[in-house]
Amino acid sequence: MDAKTISVNKDILSANSKTADRIRAVLDRHHCRMINIMSSPGSGKTSLITKTINRFKHTCSIAVIEGDIASSIDAEKISLLNVPALQINTGGGCHLDANMIEKSMNDLDLEHLDLVFIENVGNLVCTADFDLGAHKNVVILSIPEGDDKPYKYPVIFMEADIVLVNKIDVHPYFDFDMGTFPEIIYGLNPSAAVLPVSTKSGEGLDDWFSWINKILE
Amino acid sequence: MDAKTISVNKDILSANSKTADRIRAVLDRHHCRMINIMSSPGSGKTSLITKTINRFKHTCSIAVIEGDIASSIDAEKISLLNVPALQINTGGGCHLDANMIEKSMNDLDLEHLDLVFIENVGNLVCTADFDLGAHKNVVILSIPEGDDKPYKYPVIFMEADIVLVNKIDVHPYFDFDMGTFPEIIYGLNPSAAVLPVSTKSGEGLDDWFSWINKILE
Repeated sequence: MDAKTISVNKDILSANSKTADRIRAVLDRHHCRMINIMSSPGSGKTSLITKTINRFKHTCSIAVIEGDIASSIDAEKISLLNVPALQINTGGGCHLDANMIEKSMNDLDLEHLDLVFIENVGNLVCTADFDLGAHKNVVILSIPEGDDKPYKYPVIFMEADIVLVNKIDVHPYFDFDMGTFPEIIYGLNPSAAVLPVSTKSGEGLDDWFSWINKILE
Repeated sequence: MDAKTISVNKDILSANSKTADRIRAVLDRHHCRMINIMSSPGSGKTSLITKTINRFKHTCSIAVIEGDIASSIDAEKISLLNVPALQINTGGGCHLDANMIEKSMNDLDLEHLDLVFIENVGNLVCTADFDLGAHKNVVILSIPEGDDKPYKYPVIFMEADIVLVNKIDVHPYFDFDMGTFPEIIYGLNPSAAVLPVSTKSGEGLDDWFSWINKILE
């Protein structure tokens, strides 16, 4: 990258951060929490959101912002749960940014919402650079992806408040060293929690729900 | 995106295409084939390259260009096979581009090489937009990622010459409809071949090796 490219990137990220701070201020005023969920395609973002909605929908008011390059498959799945789901199609863009979130917030009834999930575009790289105004960043890595991913895609793990290791129901069929994985994360990001879960079998989800409960306090 | 953003993107992609054409011309002059392998993180790019090297290294001369955001884990794995492995670290960049490949070609002994694999950054989005000067694009989707990914990340599947569905050894533990999947790909890209494989068990790899043999003819 030449100096000009770096400077343009800095300008974009600086403007994005200001928008993100504005979003957080609006959410705080409405006592609404927002959680940004990031992972590769197919790691289990939609399944996690679905299970969490089913657990909390009778005790708090939830909405979901779905980020996708194309299609509205996930927003349709969420709508079936009788929860508002906004679809953002990035039209080829590889991540959401704060500007997209700020625009979509006009369609959210913040007055009555307690919790908003953002399902980011499936991408372990570009999503990490953009603060979306969320209060917490969740990163999902699934067992089949392998335990070496934090070395190869470190930034997203450095931005995480919690790392969920999903699909532990299939752990026996893959080489993923669950013993050393938390240390790898700790080396990159000492304040991130690591939680093994299976959105399919439900294993570990009670710990995830406790984490959500603390955010809602 | 505003008009200025679109125009800058077009300039970048147009310059990239010219560099890619120049790369292909140089490779053709040396009777060397280049194959660009793209997928999400952890879908099996390195395993596929490793198995393919072991199958062909006694009959043809192979090199690998490894693209990563950080680390040189994969290049080190490839070097153990006594094959030249060049590491490109993108320093945060989410894909390789033709300029990076052209620079790295100075370190390749094209005079004596028959086949170069590029292992792109693990990313199902941004990698698809950049022609790297390769003769063929291979996309790997693994069973645990789910059969809906072509709907959500269509561009990369439209750019593929062949789509490998990897990790079929764990097919029984996941909901992936292998019956309809080739039709989904055909709808996006009628000329792409679809091949189920397991780089772990070796199932389906003979068909992949036949595909490579045809490219080398």
